[in-house]
Amino acid sequence: MSTLPNAEQLFQQLCQQIKPLIQENTALIGIHSGGAWLMQRLLDTLTVQPVHGTLDVSFYRDDYLQRGLHHEPKPSNIAFDVQDRHIILIDDVFYTGRTIRAAMNELFDYGRPASITLAVLINRGGQELPIAPQICVHHMQVAQNQNIQLLQHADGSFYLELEDC
Amino acid sequence: MSTLPNAEQLFQQLCQQIKPLIQENTALIGIHSGGAWLMQRLLDTLTVQPVHGTLDVSFYRDDYLQRGLHHEPKPSNIAFDVQDRHIILIDDVFYTGRTIRAAMNELFDYGRPASITLAVLINRGGQELPIAPQICVHHMQVAQNQNIQLLQHADGSFYLELEDC
Repeated sequence: MSTLPNAEQLFQQLCQQIKPLIQENTALIGIHSGGAWLMQRLLDTLTVQPVHGTLDVSFYRDDYLQRGLHHEPKPSNIAFDVQDRHIILIDDVFYTGRTIRAAMNELFDYGRPASITLAVLINRGGQELPIAPQICVHHMQVAQNQNIQLLQHADGSFYLELEDC
Repeated sequence: MSTLPNAEQLFQQLCQQIKPLIQENTALIGIHSGGAWLMQRLLDTLTVQPVHGTLDVSFYRDDYLQRGLHHEPKPSNIAFDVQDRHIILIDDVFYTGRTIRAAMNELFDYGRPASITLAVLINRGGQELPIAPQICVHHMQVAQNQNIQLLQHADGSFYLELEDC
């Protein structure tokens, strides 16, 4: 088994790439759950807080009926006007692109953003759609029968876990 | 004004990149109008014809109310089962990604494809969404107040036109 990258280091790199993009008209949105954790830790480092929210795309995914619900879906929480915003959408792992298609569709249900920039920690390979992150700090090939996910220690620090699925 | 690339040469390169991807379960879809022309010329060079169709995304675009209709919308023509297909989506010029988001949404209204590969002649810069072509044969920067489009001579050969808009 290959060694997993250090999630805290990847998180620092992600912050470095996101911070210069934050302007007056920027909103941060974290995808539940890993992306929302990343966003919260990023917000903790900022003196001026941009508007922000979270998305849970369980109901929007195109394979909802196949996958069912493995967790109680958290309602999305977007308490600002999406219209004409520059949105930075944050997720932990990029895989097929289907989650991101769902996230874009949910965002457009709220309004028409000026732009959406997708920022992720890891691209695990396996793209199935013409969807790709503009910001990605680590590429690795993960087998189809494996799952990589971001987790948090009790002190809030990040680590990655690879498991068979 | 910079010299425009030779559209026929770009088209040949596009064909070279698309042809190896065509398998039994592949479908070609051309986006009206440039992408549909490119697809038709590609089909003319193939001995075995994959299933194919065309999309007109005018009604699906998120700025439909702003833009209105500049042409009589042609109904999309997809007379095959999209479910589980590997779709090669063909367009002439990639710009913000909004047309492609609309095209993906229309395709998913027909079924859940196994994959969508976006193949374009030109990426003109100006991406606004985490959407990008997997195949692109030419990159060029086109100003926001200009429009680049693919056109056909009477003999079917392609050329590009750059105009102020």
